[in-house]
Amino acid sequence: MTPSPSAHLPLGDQRTGRFYGHDILSVSQFSRDDLEYIFGVAEAMRTMVQHVGTIDLLKGKILANLFYEPSTRTQSSFMAAMQRLGGSVIPISEVRYSSVSKGESLPDTVRTLECYADVIVLRHPELGAAAQAAAAARKPIINAGDGPGEHPTQALLDLFTIVEELGHVDGLTVTMLGDLKFGRTVHSLSRLLSLFDVTLNFVSPAQLTMPEKVTAELSRRAVKYSEHTRLDAVLPQTDVLYVTRVQKERFEDLALYESLKHAFVITPDTLKAAKPKMALMHPLPRVGEIATEVDADPRAAYFRQMEYGLFVRMALLAMVLGKA
Amino acid sequence: MTPSPSAHLPLGDQRTGRFYGHDILSVSQFSRDDLEYIFGVAEAMRTMVQHVGTIDLLKGKILANLFYEPSTRTQSSFMAAMQRLGGSVIPISEVRYSSVSKGESLPDTVRTLECYADVIVLRHPELGAAAQAAAAARKPIINAGDGPGEHPTQALLDLFTIVEELGHVDGLTVTMLGDLKFGRTVHSLSRLLSLFDVTLNFVSPAQLTMPEKVTAELSRRAVKYSEHTRLDAVLPQTDVLYVTRVQKERFEDLALYESLKHAFVITPDTLKAAKPKMALMHPLPRVGEIATEVDADPRAAYFRQMEYGLFVRMALLAMVLGKA
Amino acid sequence: MTPSPSAHLPLGDQRTGRFYGHDILSVSQFSRDDLEYIFGVAEAMRTMVQHVGTIDLLKGKILANLFYEPSTRTQSSFMAAMQRLGGSVIPISEVRYSSVSKGESLPDTVRTLECYADVIVLRHPELGAAAQAAAAARKPIINAGDGPGEHPTQALLDLFTIVEELGHVDGLTVTMLGDLKFGRTVHSLSRLLSLFDVTLNFVSPAQLTMPEKVTAELSRRAVKYSEHTRLDAVLPQTDVLYVTRVQKERFEDLALYESLKHAFVITPDTLKAAKPKMALMHPLPRVGEIATEVDADPRAAYFRQMEYGLFVRMALLAMVLGKA
Repeated sequence: MTPSPSAHLPLGDQRTGRFYGHDILSVSQFSRDDLEYIFGVAEAMRTMVQHVGTIDLLKGKILANLFYEPSTRTQSSFMAAMQRLGGSVIPISEVRYSSVSKGESLPDTVRTLECYADVIVLRHPELGAAAQAAAAARKPIINAGDGPGEHPTQALLDLFTIVEELGHVDGLTVTMLGDLKFGRTVHSLSRLLSLFDVTLNFVSPAQLTMPEKVTAELSRRAVKYSEHTRLDAVLPQTDVLYVTRVQKERFEDLALYESLKHAFVITPDTLKAAKPKMALMHPLPRVGEIATEVDADPRAAYFRQMEYGLFVRMALLAMVLGKA
Repeated sequence: MTPSPSAHLPLGDQRTGRFYGHDILSVSQFSRDDLEYIFGVAEAMRTMVQHVGTIDLLKGKILANLFYEPSTRTQSSFMAAMQRLGGSVIPISEVRYSSVSKGESLPDTVRTLECYADVIVLRHPELGAAAQAAAAARKPIINAGDGPGEHPTQALLDLFTIVEELGHVDGLTVTMLGDLKFGRTVHSLSRLLSLFDVTLNFVSPAQLTMPEKVTAELSRRAVKYSEHTRLDAVLPQTDVLYVTRVQKERFEDLALYESLKHAFVITPDTLKAAKPKMALMHPLPRVGEIATEVDADPRAAYFRQMEYGLFVRMALLAMVLGKA
Repeated sequence: MTPSPSAHLPLGDQRTGRFYGHDILSVSQFSRDDLEYIFGVAEAMRTMVQHVGTIDLLKGKILANLFYEPSTRTQSSFMAAMQRLGGSVIPISEVRYSSVSKGESLPDTVRTLECYADVIVLRHPELGAAAQAAAAARKPIINAGDGPGEHPTQALLDLFTIVEELGHVDGLTVTMLGDLKFGRTVHSLSRLLSLFDVTLNFVSPAQLTMPEKVTAELSRRAVKYSEHTRLDAVLPQTDVLYVTRVQKERFEDLALYESLKHAFVITPDTLKAAKPKMALMHPLPRVGEIATEVDADPRAAYFRQMEYGLFVRMALLAMVLGKA
């Protein structure tokens, strides 16, 4: 949104609070203090959902869920977050067929939608799309993924999962496994974790290591990290094991994909070497990276991670609308 | 859902009642007593809708409408049912484009969605999909059609239509007409009717007779039924005439489809031989099986049947969520 | 809807008011007095939205948003209008995949949907579809565009924009620019303006002039109009400049499209010759017809026009449901 939102507020509306009227565009906009604030609100949301299911905090507010790429999970999560706060949603997921195919620019689409809605969640295939939308809009924009760019609410829910599962972040050893080259989630999570006193292990095939851009930033911030090709070297010390999907659609060479796909599969056997208190995470969907036999293990946190995502998105919606 | 739902309930929630927390998977799960209970609730819903339109019985509850195959009618009906009870809906009808195309399993999709929603309605092209989803889920699953399997809420609304139109079921003669081989609705309705003292007539071309699997079950239960190739033989004794569409998509031989398509068309002339009090039903959509000139006949019950469907689905949603 | 709606009303419902239970099919159904009434309600909606955002006027009412053609803008606008009045929406935008592809007629689809919803908004590619739907339906139908036919709510919001921006209509000079041959919006707006004492200028390339059918009607009603190929001749006297998109999809000859596309682009320079108080309008989406540098000009009314559209659609929904 542009600098002076108050000029566009409903007259009777006296909303306040941190992040009120702000956009959520990048993990780099958050301080440790911000994260604690967000997670405090998210915990309040968790308690509320568990006790009463839904409240009317955002009754009368409208979210435009603008998805230029389909993402059932993220769309559903934001939609549920808005509905559990009593608000309503305009889902727009067929943009490829409509105004956009007539050549309308993203800023024009956003300026139209903000005539109808109070907040816009945007998923777009192009880097920088969320920032472009925010520059045009008066209403808050929440980035739900801008191609190779960021997906900040995913990183926030990942970090919130760690907090809820293990009680704290400082002092933890976090191991990221799988496709670290193309995995947007591990890049953003690494950046957020760099605000804390953590030890990071990156375990991947040689073709899929963490990009230099990310490791350089970690070095600059003096974060302890090391790179590995095998999990067994680091698993016993790991507090958080973050597994990512090797995304087929990232490979031009399908034979390479097939050879790597199952190289890092987590089974009940794998977990025998892990700490008894550990959080096994995955952004989902999984396609075999974690055997379903693991689901019953109390350390398997990936479905709880989905629920934490709901609470974080509820917190963010309430905050940018001044109702947290 | 899995056996112990109460462990996952919101703490403040004291819900009770028959079917609370249950899945709705198959017509075979219902006793006569169950049906009377469901129809009692559905009648209360009918009265409520006719007097006030909507109530807040399920305010704050969220339905995930998960459709792997499109079905405007069924999707809209469940959506309206949830909205008329004050609840909200997450419509997911583009699964072919999203997580699923990334290879996610149905159990994983369902376990994710139940993090957001309180109940899941599932339409899936594969036999047994609803049972598979229910085995994975903690929250109630309502089967809205699993390919060649069942579509139990359709059978329930069909039977409720008979009850509302004619006042009772025992003693009635029910004639089913058209494609009885591939018509999922007539199979399920036959099973439900076998709980009552009815006489069934099956009228179809020789190529499209009722499957032996269904007739064998009727024989086992000592239900009176007979098979015919012409309607005029049985029409004068018929209390309920259930017409089905000859579905083009079921035929590999389009010439055969064309030859059969209009073989059993109901016109005002047809109805001259029918009882003055009779219910003419059709699951819709129709494509010529019933002439539009028949619509004005008071016996034409097929649009009322759509409304009864709304009341039955409202009843089921309220019941599985413990609010009936 | 058919003549006797009261027979189908919920029993406890005592709704009244002009347009209650009526269809909105064509601009030709409105008198000047009707327009004043509609705009009075729309202004009340504007005040309400600006002060409190949302009210519960249509709480419990359900809108079926039936779009046989995608139109993000119109769908979103009606959906937001219903939600800001506390009602809910059944969006149906995949009709090409479902019942319709099974061959269901529009009247049958509409008669089914009115079992679930209280009002139906219909966008359809065929001329006369809205009238056909209205003839079949008991509930109100709002035409949201029937192919080469009408899009009456667009014309109403255009006229409401003029009223809100300039305070009155009589005495104004309205200049329409661009593709006047295929532009449905300028045809309908011309018809509505013919109820007032206005002067119309039509500026277009020779290939895209206003159809004789429209100009003949204006002549019959003694409306002052003139046709031009250049804007500069009429801009200094213009109170309302209505710019339309040259729609690529209307052209078989793409070379002709390319040659005309930028012939009538509005820039800050263009506006130097315009009145200081003027309303620059566009139905959006634009594809270069108005330079983005113009957006900051106070005369640029096209995004406000989107908001006025919301208020007009709120007014219409409330009116046809007897709650205005």
